[in-house]
Formats: sequence, C-alpha cells, structure tokens
Amino acid sequence: MTFKRNKVPRAVVSRLPAYYRYLINLEKAGLVRISSQQLGERMGLTASQIRQDINCFGGFGQQGYGYNVAELRGRIGAILGLTHKYRCIVVGAGNIGLAVSGYAAFRQIGFVVEALFDVRPQALGYTKGGLPVLSVEQLPQYLAENPIDVGVLAVPEGAAQPMCDLLVKGGVKAIWNFAPVDLSVPDGVTLNSVHLQDTLLVLSYYMTNPAKADERSE
Amino acid sequence: MTFKRNKVPRAVVSRLPAYYRYLINLEKAGLVRISSQQLGERMGLTASQIRQDINCFGGFGQQGYGYNVAELRGRIGAILGLTHKYRCIVVGAGNIGLAVSGYAAFRQIGFVVEALFDVRPQALGYTKGGLPVLSVEQLPQYLAENPIDVGVLAVPEGAAQPMCDLLVKGGVKAIWNFAPVDLSVPDGVTLNSVHLQDTLLVLSYYMTNPAKADERSE
Repeated sequence: MTFKRNKVPRAVVSRLPAYYRYLINLEKAGLVRISSQQLGERMGLTASQIRQDINCFGGFGQQGYGYNVAELRGRIGAILGLTHKYRCIVVGAGNIGLAVSGYAAFRQIGFVVEALFDVRPQALGYTKGGLPVLSVEQLPQYLAENPIDVGVLAVPEGAAQPMCDLLVKGGVKAIWNFAPVDLSVPDGVTLNSVHLQDTLLVLSYYMTNPAKADERSE
Repeated sequence: MTFKRNKVPRAVVSRLPAYYRYLINLEKAGLVRISSQQLGERMGLTASQIRQDINCFGGFGQQGYGYNVAELRGRIGAILGLTHKYRCIVVGAGNIGLAVSGYAAFRQIGFVVEALFDVRPQALGYTKGGLPVLSVEQLPQYLAENPIDVGVLAVPEGAAQPMCDLLVKGGVKAIWNFAPVDLSVPDGVTLNSVHLQDTLLVLSYYMTNPAKADERSE
C-alpha cells in the first residue's frame, strides 16, 4: 500500500464510496463486467466522468470491454483503505453513538467498534449488541492499553473538542465526528465531520429552489 | 420568496449550510461585521472563494466594510428556505430516527417532527421527548389528514424505497433519507440522502492517503 501524498480532487474522493457501493451491489447481482456508460447510467453520472474519475488512480478499464466489476471493486476498496481492519471506539452512547456501533455494515467493511464511552452513569453497561459502555474517565487508560485507529465522536457540541483532544492524545489516528462543530486536529490526524444539519439545509435549499433534475448533480 | 429555477453550482449550495452555521455563531458572539478575509480564515476558505460564493446570490457585501453578520445570516437563511416551519415525520424509530426526532437544533431552524412510524410493535408508544410512535399501517391515513413537508427515512435498506413511495403518494414534498440506498423520487419531490458509510470511507481514504492540509479543502 502506498502512502505517498496524492492530489486527487476531493470531489473525486467523495464519489469513490458511491462507486464502491454500486460495485458491491453489481457484484452481488452476479454482473461480471460493466461499461462506463452503463455504470454512469446507474449512478447518474456521464460515462466520461466515470472514466475521468477512475483514471485519477490509473486506468483499470479496457477499451471495448469496460470494467471487470470484481476487479474494479477490489481496486477501489484498496484505494479506500479497506484492506485491513480498523479498531474503533465511540465516544457518546446516545442515539447516534448506538446507531454507529450497532451498524453491521461498518463491521463488514472492517471498522470494528470495540467499546463505547459516556459520561452519564445510567448509560454505562452493555449495548444491545453486547459492546461495553465505559465511563469516559476510563478513556485515557483504555487508549493506553488498546491502540485505536478511529474515534467516533457522538457527543454534544460543547464536549466535542475536549473529547477530540483526549482521543488524539491517546494516539487515535482518525476522528469521525458527528457533533455539530468544526474541530481542530493536529497534522497527521485525519478528521471527517458529518454535519447532519448541513444535509437538512441542502434539502431545504432544493425544496425552496427546485432545480431541474439535470442540474442536480455536481 | 422566489421559486425560479436556478443554476447555482451544487458545490456552492453544499457550502451554504456551513456559512449559516458560522454566521449564527458569530452573531451569538456579538460580532456585527466581518470581512471575507476574516470569514475565510475561520472557515478554511479563501476570501475570493467566499466572495464568489456569495455573489452567486447577488453580492451583499460592501467594499471596504465587509458583511453585516446578522444581515448575511438572514439572507443566507432565506436562500436556504428557513423562513417558515416545515412539518416533518420520521419513518423508522430506531437509533437514527430517534436521534433526528430528538435533536432540538432541527426544531429551532423550523423542522418540526410531529410523529414517528415503525413496523415493530415494541417500538410503538411515545419517545422520551413525548412524540407519538405510530404503526406504519397508520401512515397513509396520517398523511391524508396531515400535510407533511419532509419525510425522514430511517429504515433498513430493503424498506426504504417502498416507504419512500408511500410518503410520496401521501404528498410529502421532500425526503431526507438515511438508508444506505439511492432512492428514486418523481419530479417535484426533493431528495437528499445521507450515506453514513460514504463519509466513513472518505475518512478511511484520507487515513490511507494522507493529504497535505492545503489539499484537503475543495
């Protein structure tokens, strides 16, 4: 696996997970190969955009044949880093934290939640899925004993940055943040924030300003 | 409010909610005006990108003064459609459905959840916040009696399209979908899907392929 710095545009990166999702489903459906035209039709993209995107990572297709579905899925999976397991913990055992920790699909692609942490005494114990919910007071020691790759933040706004700092101090390499706040992390730590309200406001924008269907895609 | 078709690029639309979030916080902090330079520094964008984005909607700033924070927040709020209340229901009273229905911030910006629906008998009753959780069997009648603007889909993958169709048939104008599937809706219905796994895979990509900080933004 290469770790060299890359210059793939963020817009292309943001489409990779959708490619992965579609290819998994095509593979499940037994499809062996697909043209950029056919893939584009399913995904609402043009054939040329598909080819451009995939060429960012070195072209895998073959003129007149298209893409081998399993091969392309495997290559995109590798580009996305889905070649090994990631140890994860979730801070905040509210509804979002429980949703993330209980979601089998994340485990299937290699993101394995090992424990949750919460400040509320009544939240401690075990989840329905049998994962331990520990006190945040135990978090520093837990991180010292368990090298964790991904910390999921599902805490209220005010607790997000302090908890993020605690995770970073404990060696966590990536933060998946659900708190409605933009966090700062040091260089070398990866951060991706899911701002649910932002996605609601995009919905609201398009309700208020209906676009033609062909204007909706990027 | 205008409902004319617009051609604002989706990338600009996708940044509007962040503008709104930052401006709300600046207003709360008592700031009266801000330059595009200062706003850019806080948001991790260049001053010229800020000006370009805002100019898509007609320029609001004043040369040498910058933007009036409250005015710009109000204008962006209006562009986002936050000038009136939206009646919402949530289909699926699992963790995601409960998180969305219990989130005070959504109510504060005008999205008011009136009821949840579920197929599981043990899920029916009331949420902690006092909202009714009704059987999906009651959904068609509920929609006939209550004009609903936004339907939130927080159901398993297989149930998402049938439930979406039921909502559309019942006159729901917009679907905020959390199921990991791309839905189809007829013209005139707005759809925005939150693919949580996609955001996890983007995190995974950047863990695997670390980008320089200045390459991370769009």
